[in-house]
Amino acid sequence: MTINEKALELHEKWNGKLDTVSKVQVKTREDLALAYTPGVAEPCKVIAKDPEAAYRYTIKSNTVAVVSDGSAVLGLGNIGPLAAMPVMEGKAVLFKEFGGINAFPICLDTQDTEEIIETVVRIAPAFGGINLEDISAPRCFEIEERLKKLLNIPVFHDDQHGTAIVVLAGIINALKVTGKKKEDCRVVVNGAGSAGVAITKLLLNYGFPHITMCDKTGMLCKGMEGLNWMQEKMVEVTNLEHKTGTLADALKGADIFVGVSAPGIVSQEMVASMNKDSILFAMANPVPEIMPDLAKAAGARVVGTGRSDFPNQVNNVLIFPGIFRGALEGRATAITEEMKLAAANAIAALVDDSELSDENILPAAFDPRVADAVSKAVKEHIKK
Amino acid sequence: MTINEKALELHEKWNGKLDTVSKVQVKTREDLALAYTPGVAEPCKVIAKDPEAAYRYTIKSNTVAVVSDGSAVLGLGNIGPLAAMPVMEGKAVLFKEFGGINAFPICLDTQDTEEIIETVVRIAPAFGGINLEDISAPRCFEIEERLKKLLNIPVFHDDQHGTAIVVLAGIINALKVTGKKKEDCRVVVNGAGSAGVAITKLLLNYGFPHITMCDKTGMLCKGMEGLNWMQEKMVEVTNLEHKTGTLADALKGADIFVGVSAPGIVSQEMVASMNKDSILFAMANPVPEIMPDLAKAAGARVVGTGRSDFPNQVNNVLIFPGIFRGALEGRATAITEEMKLAAANAIAALVDDSELSDENILPAAFDPRVADAVSKAVKEHIKK
Repeated sequence: MTINEKALELHEKWNGKLDTVSKVQVKTREDLALAYTPGVAEPCKVIAKDPEAAYRYTIKSNTVAVVSDGSAVLGLGNIGPLAAMPVMEGKAVLFKEFGGINAFPICLDTQDTEEIIETVVRIAPAFGGINLEDISAPRCFEIEERLKKLLNIPVFHDDQHGTAIVVLAGIINALKVTGKKKEDCRVVVNGAGSAGVAITKLLLNYGFPHITMCDKTGMLCKGMEGLNWMQEKMVEVTNLEHKTGTLADALKGADIFVGVSAPGIVSQEMVASMNKDSILFAMANPVPEIMPDLAKAAGARVVGTGRSDFPNQVNNVLIFPGIFRGALEGRATAITEEMKLAAANAIAALVDDSELSDENILPAAFDPRVADAVSKAVKEHIKK
Repeated sequence: MTINEKALELHEKWNGKLDTVSKVQVKTREDLALAYTPGVAEPCKVIAKDPEAAYRYTIKSNTVAVVSDGSAVLGLGNIGPLAAMPVMEGKAVLFKEFGGINAFPICLDTQDTEEIIETVVRIAPAFGGINLEDISAPRCFEIEERLKKLLNIPVFHDDQHGTAIVVLAGIINALKVTGKKKEDCRVVVNGAGSAGVAITKLLLNYGFPHITMCDKTGMLCKGMEGLNWMQEKMVEVTNLEHKTGTLADALKGADIFVGVSAPGIVSQEMVASMNKDSILFAMANPVPEIMPDLAKAAGARVVGTGRSDFPNQVNNVLIFPGIFRGALEGRATAITEEMKLAAANAIAALVDDSELSDENILPAAFDPRVADAVSKAVKEHIKK
């Protein structure tokens, strides 16, 4: 039986991967009077006077909505909200298992930007944070930005920022391993959707001056036709030499390749054309842009993928549980750039210099220190 | 320490009465590959082709949204969605404890009818049923009716129908105890909001021909000013003799009083003016329309209240867990009048003739047979 067949069989057996359970025993009349009427009126009255009290008396303090419209689910594309449910339930499972956070899937039967925004605002009272998931670009950018302004709870599009933070963490350690300096590195980000844009932004903020974004048509350059509004913003601050050409052209002399794109699109020739000690994050799933052994054979020094069966797994399960735990525990009203950079540094620091190597730049997904380290880093950067 | 003080203290200790937990172990890479990527793509693909498969592979088959806008919470009134959270969490606890159903609070930051309707439609994919709760009349009638048309999952406003069903169950047995016949009974329903309207409708459907509704202004009568659209519909089928006057006038010669109104508004004189062997459901909470001992002293035969510290507790925890369990297990697309009548009969039948008495017309809230009996009755009336 393949893993896919087994997964299907198990999903039928599970019949849903989440349960909501009561933290409260209700076996007697008194139990009922305390957890429900008439006793429940007391916390209601307190919250009605002081909304902050909701964090003391309700699930809000530790509950996140996993919100999707099903428009960009895994590699499956626009399969809609109902078909997205197994992924959103899975994400909620990871929130609980890795972060100790209660999460619930909110799969929206609309793909209209305005409707998504207003719906999330309306359901926000029960939640301490909003995790946006698998919403297609460029709508995801506007939805996140607008929600951040409208809500006083953290809003975080994991496909963007979770990916960006873990990539940066890996790159921080890859620089140490290779002895490269960020100021000198030429970086190519292939894929100009939600993850590619967020990775580019975070690498710019971290201090990489030379980044070029590519998509299927090649290098993105100021003045090109067919860019969406976010890509137009990105070409203002990337590809400063205004080069045009293919991905192969972009990779000539590059130090770092970050792929959030498509299987097998990077050849050994392209890798060979990169600078010495090149760093590749080939994160197309399940088949990377180039297989690690091929990349290594062509001269790459550090290779990471999204897969758990190769070294250097770049997995955002390292990120979102700790991000939200820190934000919830610290009562952050937003996830800031400072928190993202701090989280990346915290994850990078978990790999001790003595353990650091070409094949070991990131902690493992199941490393129990990860969520604590990220959470701590986030809390240290909450503005009060 | 009073029960209210204890409830407040416990709510702080609980810090939310619900947890979402994973039904799936995620301790190894293989676990992750099965519950999340890449394995999770398989059920997604199946659901994308066949939406019905969501009932096999996701939480939808056993998950209910507890939806409120906080506009009519307990006796507290319009305290808003955040302050309503403790009640909605409590309701979710009862769904789980009494019905084995996963329920999650959706507290809406809007009290606009159209916005509530469109929001519930948009979040519906994750849910197998919608329980509306503590939404003020007459908006609750329109919201429920419209949602029933828009959604293909059961929508049930418990304040209306849960209350109506348990009242009917109690009345069915009170008729047996008193030997009264529904065709001959004069019924007065005091309170013309969500519960009063739903009770009246169900009693009409059950076959009570003579019902008069009252509110603060007295008897509702065709042609009166100040009625809302639902009350105008109700006076077409109630108070057929077009009487006007006070509640006291209405009760003269009445057989059954059903109060979903205000504390202490029924006097002993009013009870004494009713027919022999009168039946009173005085359900104002926590203080009934008349205390049972006073009603009895004035001649009432059967008295029920909402309280657990008197005989004949009329509690809709007897209803909603079984209603939804039956509807979910039987994949009902709606809760019909037939199901409601069947549920009332099923509950009434749980009190054996040998046990039936003035002081024992309903099963206890913690009677473990209740949810099964209601669920079975609902399933027998699902149209396929």
